[in-house]
Amino acid sequence: MAGNSYGTLYKITTFGESHGEALGGIIDGCPPGIELDFDAIRREMQRRKPGQSAIVTQRKENDQVQFLSGIFEGKTTGTPIGFIIPNTDQKSHDYSHIKDQYRPSHADYVYEKKYGLRDYRGGGRSSARETASRVVAGAIAKQFLKDVKINAFVSSVGDIFIDKPYQALDFSKIESNDVRCPDTATAEKMEAYIKEIRKQGDSVGGTVTCVIQNVPIGLGEPVFDKLHAELGKAMLSINAVKGFEYGSGFCGAKMKGSEHNDLYNPDGTTKSNLSGGIQGGISNGMDIYFRVAFKPVATIIQKQEALDNQGNIVEMQGKGRHDPCVVPRAVPIVEAMAAIVLADFYLIDKTYNK
Amino acid sequence: MAGNSYGTLYKITTFGESHGEALGGIIDGCPPGIELDFDAIRREMQRRKPGQSAIVTQRKENDQVQFLSGIFEGKTTGTPIGFIIPNTDQKSHDYSHIKDQYRPSHADYVYEKKYGLRDYRGGGRSSARETASRVVAGAIAKQFLKDVKINAFVSSVGDIFIDKPYQALDFSKIESNDVRCPDTATAEKMEAYIKEIRKQGDSVGGTVTCVIQNVPIGLGEPVFDKLHAELGKAMLSINAVKGFEYGSGFCGAKMKGSEHNDLYNPDGTTKSNLSGGIQGGISNGMDIYFRVAFKPVATIIQKQEALDNQGNIVEMQGKGRHDPCVVPRAVPIVEAMAAIVLADFYLIDKTYNK
Amino acid sequence: MAGNSYGTLYKITTFGESHGEALGGIIDGCPPGIELDFDAIRREMQRRKPGQSAIVTQRKENDQVQFLSGIFEGKTTGTPIGFIIPNTDQKSHDYSHIKDQYRPSHADYVYEKKYGLRDYRGGGRSSARETASRVVAGAIAKQFLKDVKINAFVSSVGDIFIDKPYQALDFSKIESNDVRCPDTATAEKMEAYIKEIRKQGDSVGGTVTCVIQNVPIGLGEPVFDKLHAELGKAMLSINAVKGFEYGSGFCGAKMKGSEHNDLYNPDGTTKSNLSGGIQGGISNGMDIYFRVAFKPVATIIQKQEALDNQGNIVEMQGKGRHDPCVVPRAVPIVEAMAAIVLADFYLIDKTYNK
Amino acid sequence: MAGNSYGTLYKITTFGESHGEALGGIIDGCPPGIELDFDAIRREMQRRKPGQSAIVTQRKENDQVQFLSGIFEGKTTGTPIGFIIPNTDQKSHDYSHIKDQYRPSHADYVYEKKYGLRDYRGGGRSSARETASRVVAGAIAKQFLKDVKINAFVSSVGDIFIDKPYQALDFSKIESNDVRCPDTATAEKMEAYIKEIRKQGDSVGGTVTCVIQNVPIGLGEPVFDKLHAELGKAMLSINAVKGFEYGSGFCGAKMKGSEHNDLYNPDGTTKSNLSGGIQGGISNGMDIYFRVAFKPVATIIQKQEALDNQGNIVEMQGKGRHDPCVVPRAVPIVEAMAAIVLADFYLIDKTYNK
Repeated sequence: MAGNSYGTLYKITTFGESHGEALGGIIDGCPPGIELDFDAIRREMQRRKPGQSAIVTQRKENDQVQFLSGIFEGKTTGTPIGFIIPNTDQKSHDYSHIKDQYRPSHADYVYEKKYGLRDYRGGGRSSARETASRVVAGAIAKQFLKDVKINAFVSSVGDIFIDKPYQALDFSKIESNDVRCPDTATAEKMEAYIKEIRKQGDSVGGTVTCVIQNVPIGLGEPVFDKLHAELGKAMLSINAVKGFEYGSGFCGAKMKGSEHNDLYNPDGTTKSNLSGGIQGGISNGMDIYFRVAFKPVATIIQKQEALDNQGNIVEMQGKGRHDPCVVPRAVPIVEAMAAIVLADFYLIDKTYNK
Repeated sequence: MAGNSYGTLYKITTFGESHGEALGGIIDGCPPGIELDFDAIRREMQRRKPGQSAIVTQRKENDQVQFLSGIFEGKTTGTPIGFIIPNTDQKSHDYSHIKDQYRPSHADYVYEKKYGLRDYRGGGRSSARETASRVVAGAIAKQFLKDVKINAFVSSVGDIFIDKPYQALDFSKIESNDVRCPDTATAEKMEAYIKEIRKQGDSVGGTVTCVIQNVPIGLGEPVFDKLHAELGKAMLSINAVKGFEYGSGFCGAKMKGSEHNDLYNPDGTTKSNLSGGIQGGISNGMDIYFRVAFKPVATIIQKQEALDNQGNIVEMQGKGRHDPCVVPRAVPIVEAMAAIVLADFYLIDKTYNK
Repeated sequence: MAGNSYGTLYKITTFGESHGEALGGIIDGCPPGIELDFDAIRREMQRRKPGQSAIVTQRKENDQVQFLSGIFEGKTTGTPIGFIIPNTDQKSHDYSHIKDQYRPSHADYVYEKKYGLRDYRGGGRSSARETASRVVAGAIAKQFLKDVKINAFVSSVGDIFIDKPYQALDFSKIESNDVRCPDTATAEKMEAYIKEIRKQGDSVGGTVTCVIQNVPIGLGEPVFDKLHAELGKAMLSINAVKGFEYGSGFCGAKMKGSEHNDLYNPDGTTKSNLSGGIQGGISNGMDIYFRVAFKPVATIIQKQEALDNQGNIVEMQGKGRHDPCVVPRAVPIVEAMAAIVLADFYLIDKTYNK
Repeated sequence: MAGNSYGTLYKITTFGESHGEALGGIIDGCPPGIELDFDAIRREMQRRKPGQSAIVTQRKENDQVQFLSGIFEGKTTGTPIGFIIPNTDQKSHDYSHIKDQYRPSHADYVYEKKYGLRDYRGGGRSSARETASRVVAGAIAKQFLKDVKINAFVSSVGDIFIDKPYQALDFSKIESNDVRCPDTATAEKMEAYIKEIRKQGDSVGGTVTCVIQNVPIGLGEPVFDKLHAELGKAMLSINAVKGFEYGSGFCGAKMKGSEHNDLYNPDGTTKSNLSGGIQGGISNGMDIYFRVAFKPVATIIQKQEALDNQGNIVEMQGKGRHDPCVVPRAVPIVEAMAAIVLADFYLIDKTYNK
């Protein structure tokens, strides 16, 4: 089954295993004439990259994107943009011990059942390394979207969370700390906690909040392809994600209609924005905001039980260089997927008879 | 933009406004030779139908499905199944007062901005009546899926929630009360609360939990089309949904890896199931369970401010016959969309070289 | 497999067997705000209809289209247009004799092998009656395309053909005779020949030529979805079609480049138009023209050998009311499919950054 | 618009301009566990390659395929197969003279109008070099299809054609001459003619016939996605193709039903096969055969008029190394596209309830 594409008009197709020769992808449908800022693309790649700070995996990946087509004299040509990201630091021997073993809460077991065989090196296709290609496509989508501002940040790690509405936060501080939490005091607590978790050889989950501003009215299709339904699918397609809510989210399920309804101002904006910038699946011009839940990464550096392919429960100890907490590096991936979804709906919107 | 279809191999396309001549749809890709149980289809329609109990809208809709093709001598033929559901009780005059007004937290405003015009009668295409077509497609998908058991139920209304794990519940009791909550004591509290809300002319939100059992190992595609990503999109495409979580969900984001990892039994099942039956986007044979958040319906029978198309804030009073709480009627819709998603992945799974 | 849809942004999905309750379809992606001319739609249906003249099948079909959604106060709303065409003159008993027999060059045998069962009444889904739904979608596409002129006509029947270039023909004469051939003298010969063929209880093939004028420059996608590749697929999807050529076509394969190349005028038009209005898969603003070959219809009123489902060769005699020559009625179908393809590319073209 | 993909379940997406850094593609949906014969892939690439004989362009392209993913220990894994073909002999300076000029019957003009800019080096994306990626995908599809035999050959060059039915030909002789014509005497005439055309600095068209054997009964979808409709689109998507016919083709349009109908043998095969192995869009187990018309390539080494971007008619002389006749090199491309179409339908067929 061909299932490695996302989007209808702005479409990304990705390939690549964590320990093959290269990852890469094709961005198909990017409009012509966009002058690309390659530094901006590199910056996004840098944000996703392992080894960028003390609280993420120390695995070194070079993550150099090579563009092979679709760009001429610095501008997109409207033809497909092919790119590769060579794998350079692939210590395959780190993984030989799991060849015949299925790690708990990993995809090892289901891959083998589904395909009849698997590339066991580093998780193969199920590795989070695949998201590098998404970040490339997202970085270009952001440039296409220009005035739309997409800011994601870490809103909780374990039990530690920001207790302010996003309107009270200064997004320019997101990159000022390793956690990517714009609330400095909370960021410090999160960082200390992640370091402690790493010392324990354990991992911890967290949430990422994303705020999208300056979205034109009218994006999203009203029935199955609601704007928030696509954003939800895009987020749930990121490794380790367990939940998605937008606007009032799960809290909204406890409220009354008389409290929840967003009353209008005369200019069509709303006084409150519990709708989260989307009504009936269509953007209404207000800020779109949503929250994404990430489970703790399954790989831990403690002894654990695993299953081998003979049906024996065996003891295994995590090796390799893994993330104690995935959310800081998930921030640019959340933004990338949001940008891809919006670029797609933006192109779809042009087909309406305006 | 053609956005009224769901699914790749088992595909449903729907049409119809709440106050047009009929709703309907085409189920394309249903395998041939399935002996249809038409009573079972009618039962599902009955569950979704307005006017079925004292706690839902008293609007009467006949909801008679007429099948027009794709069925011969009681069996599916493999050709597209076309069907219509005539609209019979469409009191259009109930809606004339909102012709020039945008109700708060409704899709009126964004439809008019997106399309330049709108069918203002009863919400037109944004009406929840569209879900009747989904229930037809879901009822047939259920029959195709045979051994797979899909049970949804109301898990909370406002602040009232079931405080037991789903394993402690008796699904055969779901239909024993009007709320569709299998925990009888909780159901009574919910019912009383909904009646009170209705008396206030208000509405209230809630959550629906869905449990899917006997799913074969291997359904779901590993990257963008993860099983839970499609389930998430399908649920978020239902009117009034604000959030989706599966397995450990948002709670999982607070946990440590050492607590969260599902250890294996020798037979490949797991001891805990915080993964929610899905690993790396692929079913692992354990129960799939997820939770869906519904906001309070926007239409309330209290005075509210609205916006008119001249930019004036006007007072409006809800009329018509609306649901004080949407979740009891959402239960069969959640099941239907889950069945459609599973049927699609089940067909995709057949393309693997087995 | 869901295979009953055509188009990406202007998408038609059809359902219905020739002897079921109704045919119909959903047009998804039609832009909002188009004021529909329902008489024009009826005229197109009338042209396709059986029983319209002495040289086509005398089967009477009412072919009344009922629109069920997507239209409000005479205008398209941008939501899906659902429609049905009830089957009223379905003499099912005419077909009982073929229940256990496979007619030569019909789809009976392959349907039964593919699906394991079949609706044997009148060809079921393989009946040309399915094209009625295409004509509805094409008639609306034509109204959306406004200035684009699509004229198809019969260019040959058996060995009788128009020996003039299309530029020498008066398209206003197409409807002036029953054959739909704009060259009156040739039309008379064709009509006489078809009548003779009918007397023999036989059938005969023919070709339809289609000319599309006033197409904007730039429609078509350069690689797989070339404008002529889609037109070709659309035509080859019509029952009984055996070939498609555009511009110089098969004759072009005999020519030299120095003869075949279309030299430019200073305004970007070309002196000759052997390219057929399409270069590199993209419209260049010149007339698009193509030719479609139809085989003789398989049903004849002569004794023929057939195969029964026990593996016996049996004698069968065609009954019922069939077309001695399909091309006169194929003319509106060719136009409809061309209109659908163009509407789709026209919408796609809007997504380019103009 | 995302238009660089072909196929639903076996899907190829390509990228790359003739003078960019590399071409390549992603094959998505290839089933797992296929042991790949890399020599066979190289042989197919070799057949398409320029410079392979005296009658084709002397441009040297290395055409080394590098597989980057989806293959592990020599077998497909079911994950996407990414590959690149570096461009090594890209004499870009050969093309600077056409930067501001539109060559007759080339895509230069329409690309510039469609996209607002173009990569003018060697035709950019409209170059036939793009087909290298199709040959990779086709070579793998052939290995997946195993028992299905796909043989294409040159059936005419200019006025010279094979005057035998394909059943009288020995396909093992196709590769015995540079023209790829299995009839040796005709091949010699064709070769001499092509050499003469080259001396004249001209080009000539031709046809390729393709015969597909051992196809299982039941491939193809009955309405829009008929097997021959997809084959037609696939062929028409190849550069320079002007027409497609299958089975009796355009000749069939001159015949009577009593002559054209294929009578059955008791085993379900047919006595004649004017249907071309396909009935009602579905394979019937007989040989599939079709014919594809290629126009003479537009680039010739004679003085010609061209248009410049100021609206002047200018004289231009073709330079570079071009094919005098495209059909010998088109043979493997026709086979590749046929294999891709069949692989797709083969996978779709598995979704039927068998």
